[in-house]
Amino acid sequence: MKLMIRKDQLNDAIQQVSKASSARPAIPILGGIKFDVDHQGVTLTASDTDISIQSFIPVENGEFVVARIDKPGSVVLPAKFFVEIVKKLPSDELEIEVKDNHQTMIRSGSTDIQMIGLDPEEFPVLPTIEEKDTISVPGDLLKMMIRQTVFATSTSEQTPILTGTLWNLVEGQLKFVATDRHRLASRTANVETEADYRFSNVVIAGKTLNELSRLIPDDNSHVNIFVADNQVLFKIGHVLFYSRILDGTYPDTSKIIPQQFKTELVLNTKKLTDSIDRAYLMSREEKTNIVRLMTQEDGTIEVSSSSAELGRVTEQLEVKEMNGEPLRIAFNSKYVLDALKVIDSEFLFIGFNGAMSPIIFKPTDHSHSLHLILPYRTTG
Amino acid sequence: MKLMIRKDQLNDAIQQVSKASSARPAIPILGGIKFDVDHQGVTLTASDTDISIQSFIPVENGEFVVARIDKPGSVVLPAKFFVEIVKKLPSDELEIEVKDNHQTMIRSGSTDIQMIGLDPEEFPVLPTIEEKDTISVPGDLLKMMIRQTVFATSTSEQTPILTGTLWNLVEGQLKFVATDRHRLASRTANVETEADYRFSNVVIAGKTLNELSRLIPDDNSHVNIFVADNQVLFKIGHVLFYSRILDGTYPDTSKIIPQQFKTELVLNTKKLTDSIDRAYLMSREEKTNIVRLMTQEDGTIEVSSSSAELGRVTEQLEVKEMNGEPLRIAFNSKYVLDALKVIDSEFLFIGFNGAMSPIIFKPTDHSHSLHLILPYRTTG
Repeated sequence: MKLMIRKDQLNDAIQQVSKASSARPAIPILGGIKFDVDHQGVTLTASDTDISIQSFIPVENGEFVVARIDKPGSVVLPAKFFVEIVKKLPSDELEIEVKDNHQTMIRSGSTDIQMIGLDPEEFPVLPTIEEKDTISVPGDLLKMMIRQTVFATSTSEQTPILTGTLWNLVEGQLKFVATDRHRLASRTANVETEADYRFSNVVIAGKTLNELSRLIPDDNSHVNIFVADNQVLFKIGHVLFYSRILDGTYPDTSKIIPQQFKTELVLNTKKLTDSIDRAYLMSREEKTNIVRLMTQEDGTIEVSSSSAELGRVTEQLEVKEMNGEPLRIAFNSKYVLDALKVIDSEFLFIGFNGAMSPIIFKPTDHSHSLHLILPYRTTG
Repeated sequence: MKLMIRKDQLNDAIQQVSKASSARPAIPILGGIKFDVDHQGVTLTASDTDISIQSFIPVENGEFVVARIDKPGSVVLPAKFFVEIVKKLPSDELEIEVKDNHQTMIRSGSTDIQMIGLDPEEFPVLPTIEEKDTISVPGDLLKMMIRQTVFATSTSEQTPILTGTLWNLVEGQLKFVATDRHRLASRTANVETEADYRFSNVVIAGKTLNELSRLIPDDNSHVNIFVADNQVLFKIGHVLFYSRILDGTYPDTSKIIPQQFKTELVLNTKKLTDSIDRAYLMSREEKTNIVRLMTQEDGTIEVSSSSAELGRVTEQLEVKEMNGEPLRIAFNSKYVLDALKVIDSEFLFIGFNGAMSPIIFKPTDHSHSLHLILPYRTTG
């Protein structure tokens, strides 16, 4: 294997795939980036056991030559060092040459690097996914859907299935659900796909979705998604992102979402967020993050929290609409803030069924998002 | 105590002083900010036992009214919560009122905060420093002098005196020296003071100097420095910064600095930095950070490092001047990079006295900085 390649393009591709290389690999090969060079271009691959990322650098990029291939071949180079050295090389291009025993020479300006490469035959083989049925989602929308749900996944490995987000596709509607048993976030969107294509119980780790999100560029490009038995493939331009599907059956959450409410509020999202944020600062001192919400006789609501050591915060808030019974309720303000921060609507609806029942938060601008939070069962 | 005050001005002053309040105070009062209110303005003070910071907010700021004092008085409020809540208050101004038992009411918009204040009588008394002799240093220069030396202070508490930077003043020349026994950094500057004013063995903790640096604004204002027996006072506009002087006698480092060299090099600072930085990336894998420098017969130098697992980096570097004996030397590349990054000169001089003797780095543009680094005593 021997080639000349532009530093910037190689660096971009390395940054994309390196997220899938293990920082502390169980075996050295998993801490590497695989290079596959042919006359079309250079394919970089990195893989831990959960995710694999592949990026292709074509030899020509429309107007200019990106790489000149002298000899096709493959090698695996240790990712951590390689990722850092490439961006610091003195010249705009570099030469990579693999000699006997995977020994690799990298030359750039007056810098000579000799790297101990690893055998590409030992590198994990990527899953084969039949590219039959697909769904196509605008990158921006997919990032938004991830951001609006992933925070509600569980961080506890006790119930591994809850560390993921549940994906379902029915009648062209893609739905994400995440819950850690204390709160739930869901988001739906209509996506481009064959009318009869459907899947259910596809659960993808929250950590993986955050990595995926970072790979999606801020333009209008679409992401193509292919779902297989235990793997999902995301195609983002020249980048392929493979993720394992979590084992197990996701719990049925549809029954816990109330459809009717004893008390209903419509409020300004930003004003409520700011109020709860101030109350949160005080509640945080008590570790419990308990904030109380109380309807007032004058048609406003009071948000409050207190700490034995610090004192008390009391907020008076106007509401746009209030219907139903008077209410006193307590909740974990951190959970409520997490939900409020991703509600993309000037006003929001909150529905209650008394102090002991789940609270529902929904935007008023659209019906694609829903957040459920269990209240604290406090006395008094 | 009762006043109205603009949020922005209060917030700026709180941000300045809060660096001196303890995050985990031994006694609660040290985690507080003291308010002293009179008809001239509001004085805020925070103090751990090592540093104290005081900031004064005058009632009028040239064109506009900053505070309206209804009733002078004092109180101590818990810093951590107060620092965060003030910037999040809904209105541009806030009312602070202290009632019985130091209970403090803060009102802003429709937010009501009741804080448990502490007794201002229990707050530490600031040192009294006679403002007789002073030195005046441009803020930018002082920040530069700190940055060019503080990295060489020791982080080990085994020899506490070396965790500080030594300050001497002789004949209008202020000199900073820092060393951790492996390397030394020194910086001098001519400052405004009385011709016969001098001091020696003033040692200020590196951590404290970093805090001081952050308080110095990026304008052309001067910092006035007053040195007392065991305290130094820095006056930065409306801000007073008090620091303890470390106990003990700083070692005499003047004798370890060679005046003559067997090998002398003059090189481009940036090119050398970049080369050593690349070699450092490889050397870091071996934990020792060992990089080798070798003069070549063709008048260039070679910088190299190697790792048993990764391979080898070799850099060829042109020099502007080379005099004296051929040389092979090994050093801790992290220490050399720390020094190179603060050398503010396009070219630098490096002086050697063989592979076992201290290496001296100096800018060629001026004679105010000097860095010494001990080599590694390696075989071969």
